[in-house]
Amino acid sequence: MRFTNFESIEKLVDIAISEDLSNGDPSTEVSIDESLVLDFELILKQSGVLSGIDVAEFVFKKIDPKINFNSLIDDRYSESRVFAKIDGPAKSILSAERTALNFIQRMSGVATSVYEYKKLISDLNVDIVDTRKTIPGWRILDKYSVLAGGGANHRIDLGQMIMLKDNHLNSGNLDEIVKKSKHEYPELKIEVEVENESQLNEALFLPIERIMLDNWEIKKASEAVKKIRLKNKDITIEISGGINKKTIRNYALCLPDIISLGSVTHSAKALDISLEVA
Amino acid sequence: MRFTNFESIEKLVDIAISEDLSNGDPSTEVSIDESLVLDFELILKQSGVLSGIDVAEFVFKKIDPKINFNSLIDDRYSESRVFAKIDGPAKSILSAERTALNFIQRMSGVATSVYEYKKLISDLNVDIVDTRKTIPGWRILDKYSVLAGGGANHRIDLGQMIMLKDNHLNSGNLDEIVKKSKHEYPELKIEVEVENESQLNEALFLPIERIMLDNWEIKKASEAVKKIRLKNKDITIEISGGINKKTIRNYALCLPDIISLGSVTHSAKALDISLEVA
Amino acid sequence: MRFTNFESIEKLVDIAISEDLSNGDPSTEVSIDESLVLDFELILKQSGVLSGIDVAEFVFKKIDPKINFNSLIDDRYSESRVFAKIDGPAKSILSAERTALNFIQRMSGVATSVYEYKKLISDLNVDIVDTRKTIPGWRILDKYSVLAGGGANHRIDLGQMIMLKDNHLNSGNLDEIVKKSKHEYPELKIEVEVENESQLNEALFLPIERIMLDNWEIKKASEAVKKIRLKNKDITIEISGGINKKTIRNYALCLPDIISLGSVTHSAKALDISLEVA
Amino acid sequence: MRFTNFESIEKLVDIAISEDLSNGDPSTEVSIDESLVLDFELILKQSGVLSGIDVAEFVFKKIDPKINFNSLIDDRYSESRVFAKIDGPAKSILSAERTALNFIQRMSGVATSVYEYKKLISDLNVDIVDTRKTIPGWRILDKYSVLAGGGANHRIDLGQMIMLKDNHLNSGNLDEIVKKSKHEYPELKIEVEVENESQLNEALFLPIERIMLDNWEIKKASEAVKKIRLKNKDITIEISGGINKKTIRNYALCLPDIISLGSVTHSAKALDISLEVA
Amino acid sequence: MRFTNFESIEKLVDIAISEDLSNGDPSTEVSIDESLVLDFELILKQSGVLSGIDVAEFVFKKIDPKINFNSLIDDRYSESRVFAKIDGPAKSILSAERTALNFIQRMSGVATSVYEYKKLISDLNVDIVDTRKTIPGWRILDKYSVLAGGGANHRIDLGQMIMLKDNHLNSGNLDEIVKKSKHEYPELKIEVEVENESQLNEALFLPIERIMLDNWEIKKASEAVKKIRLKNKDITIEISGGINKKTIRNYALCLPDIISLGSVTHSAKALDISLEVA
Amino acid sequence: MRFTNFESIEKLVDIAISEDLSNGDPSTEVSIDESLVLDFELILKQSGVLSGIDVAEFVFKKIDPKINFNSLIDDRYSESRVFAKIDGPAKSILSAERTALNFIQRMSGVATSVYEYKKLISDLNVDIVDTRKTIPGWRILDKYSVLAGGGANHRIDLGQMIMLKDNHLNSGNLDEIVKKSKHEYPELKIEVEVENESQLNEALFLPIERIMLDNWEIKKASEAVKKIRLKNKDITIEISGGINKKTIRNYALCLPDIISLGSVTHSAKALDISLEVA
Repeated sequence: MRFTNFESIEKLVDIAISEDLSNGDPSTEVSIDESLVLDFELILKQSGVLSGIDVAEFVFKKIDPKINFNSLIDDRYSESRVFAKIDGPAKSILSAERTALNFIQRMSGVATSVYEYKKLISDLNVDIVDTRKTIPGWRILDKYSVLAGGGANHRIDLGQMIMLKDNHLNSGNLDEIVKKSKHEYPELKIEVEVENESQLNEALFLPIERIMLDNWEIKKASEAVKKIRLKNKDITIEISGGINKKTIRNYALCLPDIISLGSVTHSAKALDISLEVA
Repeated sequence: MRFTNFESIEKLVDIAISEDLSNGDPSTEVSIDESLVLDFELILKQSGVLSGIDVAEFVFKKIDPKINFNSLIDDRYSESRVFAKIDGPAKSILSAERTALNFIQRMSGVATSVYEYKKLISDLNVDIVDTRKTIPGWRILDKYSVLAGGGANHRIDLGQMIMLKDNHLNSGNLDEIVKKSKHEYPELKIEVEVENESQLNEALFLPIERIMLDNWEIKKASEAVKKIRLKNKDITIEISGGINKKTIRNYALCLPDIISLGSVTHSAKALDISLEVA
Repeated sequence: MRFTNFESIEKLVDIAISEDLSNGDPSTEVSIDESLVLDFELILKQSGVLSGIDVAEFVFKKIDPKINFNSLIDDRYSESRVFAKIDGPAKSILSAERTALNFIQRMSGVATSVYEYKKLISDLNVDIVDTRKTIPGWRILDKYSVLAGGGANHRIDLGQMIMLKDNHLNSGNLDEIVKKSKHEYPELKIEVEVENESQLNEALFLPIERIMLDNWEIKKASEAVKKIRLKNKDITIEISGGINKKTIRNYALCLPDIISLGSVTHSAKALDISLEVA
Repeated sequence: MRFTNFESIEKLVDIAISEDLSNGDPSTEVSIDESLVLDFELILKQSGVLSGIDVAEFVFKKIDPKINFNSLIDDRYSESRVFAKIDGPAKSILSAERTALNFIQRMSGVATSVYEYKKLISDLNVDIVDTRKTIPGWRILDKYSVLAGGGANHRIDLGQMIMLKDNHLNSGNLDEIVKKSKHEYPELKIEVEVENESQLNEALFLPIERIMLDNWEIKKASEAVKKIRLKNKDITIEISGGINKKTIRNYALCLPDIISLGSVTHSAKALDISLEVA
Repeated sequence: MRFTNFESIEKLVDIAISEDLSNGDPSTEVSIDESLVLDFELILKQSGVLSGIDVAEFVFKKIDPKINFNSLIDDRYSESRVFAKIDGPAKSILSAERTALNFIQRMSGVATSVYEYKKLISDLNVDIVDTRKTIPGWRILDKYSVLAGGGANHRIDLGQMIMLKDNHLNSGNLDEIVKKSKHEYPELKIEVEVENESQLNEALFLPIERIMLDNWEIKKASEAVKKIRLKNKDITIEISGGINKKTIRNYALCLPDIISLGSVTHSAKALDISLEVA
Repeated sequence: MRFTNFESIEKLVDIAISEDLSNGDPSTEVSIDESLVLDFELILKQSGVLSGIDVAEFVFKKIDPKINFNSLIDDRYSESRVFAKIDGPAKSILSAERTALNFIQRMSGVATSVYEYKKLISDLNVDIVDTRKTIPGWRILDKYSVLAGGGANHRIDLGQMIMLKDNHLNSGNLDEIVKKSKHEYPELKIEVEVENESQLNEALFLPIERIMLDNWEIKKASEAVKKIRLKNKDITIEISGGINKKTIRNYALCLPDIISLGSVTHSAKALDISLEVA
């Protein structure tokens, strides 16, 4: 997995375990013998991109270090299949089941959503990136799953790039704000969001690294991309705003560098995954 | 809002603020004057059930207590409209925007999903309930949004009811397990999941409070409900398993007491909400 | 031990270690050589029910993973004896001593108190249960020790059952409140506390799972139990309120299902346990 | 209250609120109208020393800042009486009730226990002090309640004084250990525990500030006190070990400076306190 | 202050308060009457750049909200003077004194150190920036103080820019790594550290935003700057490596864009500041 | 290392890791293969006292348990040398590098500073002690490093000794305050700070354990020491206040017991240490 350590994920895992298990698990208490050891399987029940197998492993081991977890494949696209074997104390495995599945089902859902968009434009040299429209508490996991699905990451937090939008420009002069940005944050790239041609024309003459065409019709977006490329071939061009599976190909044909999609994280559908006795 | 206090929600809010703002917000730093005070509006841009208005308020105030937040309506169904006025330091409001919206958009998405299901069966006396398939870290917020959408809550955590499934029954005798449950957890109701008629027949003779028909075809479910009612009119009947908008009405016509839906929380679509300068 | 994992207990253990050791342990620093390895024993110095042996083990290992801890018996009633062997760095063991003993002494005290009550009515089919009158921070440990002593657990938190008392009934109609409870919290049992006969008569006609006779004289309690049984043999009957070792047998002879005792947790006496060099 | 701030207590309060309320309070949800405002009273139902009134206030306000809390007296001895008035949202007050009472009942129980011991020797110039045998998580609250009851505090944690016991002296020479203590921890007082006369004789010749007579018979303790006084009138003398209400006066008549009692914290009985509608 | 909220700083403040005050403040307990209210002043006792006045205010208010804190100037260079007035409960103010001063003295020390370097090259268009060599736990405060002293911030954490050093280049081809960087982290600038001319020559042909001359002699650094400017005027040039007050002006005369200094944070000298009764 | 456990240090380590790594380490992501295993060395590049080797080890292992860390020497004075070997996943080691070095460089800087002062007075029987002027969050680490450098520790927190200063004496009578101290805090030593002869004369007649000469000229300090010794040979004498490397020997020649130095912690210079591929 991409992250060097689990520290930041552990806090969310702790909350998740606590919200399900802090009052114990009476259903397994009354039905499963403490000494019972069983073999289980994690099964992907539809095709899609698996993401978060090691988060699931982490949950199982956190709840009981005596659980053994063997993943059979890495996080990637797969048809329906058994993708991990788990054995150990049956009680612990059953108590951990829902929490572990809740993680991996959402993560795989995000990855699969990105994958499906990506497939629609796979012949074009256009990246799909996420936004900061992630589920609160899930920023780092959502960003990871986007990578797993074949997408790239837009800025991880507000501190990672300067993005100037309408709301930022109410009270100042864009030219000066860019100058100030370059001086005070020399380590950050600058992106300007433009909603129409006059804003675009202003942005074109600024020393910035990126332009985002926000909510442009396809035809106008196409012309804008050409105009920017003509003026400055080094600027990264992003298209954003309410793009869906029907429209993404046409936007991609405008040939921006990246298309950003909020829906892959804010409206992801869980993948169908289950735990069964082997 | 239903919850007496915000303690447990605050931890998630803290993580959410931290994951977006721990490296500051250079975009507003360079563009917005520290003394600038502005009026903003929160706008619901489609019809749906608002949920989490006070969580959004909490986020704004946590980031800057000098922000004023006035909600114009309560959490409930609404057509597109301005639903809250916010004024105060523009910098703080813009820094808080994404985090606050991420909360309210998902919460309203969950509530709206429940509402849409509920509308399909509103003439029938059948409750829609959630499951434990919530986003990790979001159990309590997801459960709240289900209520806001007109649904009811299934058990909040593993400790709140005894539910006996196939996995629990691998190694024991159901009759004895129920007996043990009543003795060791006298304060908990007992529900048994049944997947076929022979399991149902066994369950019918046990002193339990609930039966769940898990993944039954509509016709068989209808017969099972009748059979249970005949045998014991006090048992609560739950139907569960892959029910969607096309099938829910037919399942509801079987007249169980409750239908449980994982998708309203594990696959909710965010509602379209935005913050704009007034 | 009943709990699937130690997560929730770990937070309390951390506070406990921190409140004793955050400024180091100069007494062992000056007197014990860092390399000294010794054998110790945990000794129960009176008869009683041991509870929390693995919490003590957890404390020792948390302070120094190099400590070996071997329990000779499980949590249960025992005469005075050595019940665990500990070896490892003498410094660490001595630094951990007080914190570990503070846990096991109180836990065993709670368990022993329950055990002593239970012994007085062991020939009767009446369970002893705890209350929510636990030491703040200790809910889950206190509940566990009650089980260890042979008792059963009343609700673990406010969310686990609906209990309606005088204070709840000030402003509403009991009949409607019960109806509302069944609708909004279908997963929860309902218990009504009654303090006199007219309250009892009202409760008897409601679809509830439990009745608690709160602070009734023995004779009246006996009649009330009979009356309830006559009316509805499925209702669980609880007797509560200031019961002590002198009166418990007479209350138990009324033949309720359970007797609840706040004193076993709010006023437990520590068991006499010590750590000694073997 | 003695503590400059509530920071360290807040963590315990948070756990306590969370362990009771993290799944909500359905009993008040169904029975109490959100807008209902009521007047309540906190009532001491037996005589004793109140301790923790402001901790109770803190709990109520933490759960709902709209609750008003007016204490009528300070933490001190009182006959049975109303000692605080509380008004505000009835729902919040009832949800907070048990947690607040659990704090104040134990704290007052500890204070009252100290008070009762103190009364038995009030004509003698002997202080009663606590030990580190406090409930894990409660060190600071237990120590405070001992003060409230008229006692004094022994060391708060291991870092606050050097106490040398048998276990410390297994592997070293007492003389050298004391020398090392004075050099490495010049800021700490040194106390040596002695269990018999030969140990006492050795301790008498050391440059230490305190001697503890641990588990001495009354007569021998009396002689030991005289012997120490004769040798060095500046040494503080502590008597400790299994002292109870029957024996404390005789030990106090030996005229040590302090008597330490573990039972006042490890085995305190909760005081009877209740919340009622005014 | 630059930071939108105090959330992330609060955790450090909590630790700081806890490490000094968790066992109370007996010195003020015995000497200051609880009701005593006094006026105090914070005094800068040498000239320098004040930094962290509002962190100090935060500490005082956290320890006791009844303390009033009025700063007379903002964080900036000042001769010796009274810079804040504090009044309120004398006990609380004295208990908070050391913790508050420890924050502001270090923060002002860092700011002053930057200021002194900056003064030496104030006529040149060269920025002084910090490094990640900050005191663990202090990243955000150290970065802030650098700004207060007139410097700029290098990357705040590892995630904010790609910096490729010798250690990164052991196992790969620089050209490919840069390509990979641009693809996988399109939002991040890329900087390459070069230690000699051959490394420089390789870097010059890559599509990167920055070059750092690491540990170059002044004369060679001067030539390198010219060479880079000639090749690509848009590249940001950073000089780094053991620069001190004697050498900084000569390095600045090479006319890089920025000079980075680890010593301003890893070896800062506290400014002399004290709290006195007014 | 002196501390029995790492609990309290772990919190600071967690913050430190989080502030550098919470957004990942893209530089190593793009350049180092996940499977690459390498040997590294930690090198002390100047002579000085190493302190915190095991904290560095702890950081490496916390970030990746697969890292092996072998220290070649203990915390102590050393000439420039390789002092630890590290091998394991190169990616993890490089991600951990800066955080681990930040700890050990400051800790060694503090220890070395103490060591250098100590060397100037090594022939005299005078201890060097620290103050509470430590970096917030670093109390326990700073205190440890002082020991490593050959110094001793003054009180660790406000609760460990009573120190009475001018500010404490504004509103009360010194004599009474000392009496109160002895009664309420029998376990604590008492130190009085005196700034001039009349204060000294008052202090001399009190039953206290220590006197601190605060900001005395050398000659007057010398006379004061003699005067105190004459009056009471058991009082510990501390000299404090703006002592530096030029003046310390002359102050030490006054022959107090201890000299306290704030600068060793509040203004320490980092030692030069680096991580290199072996």
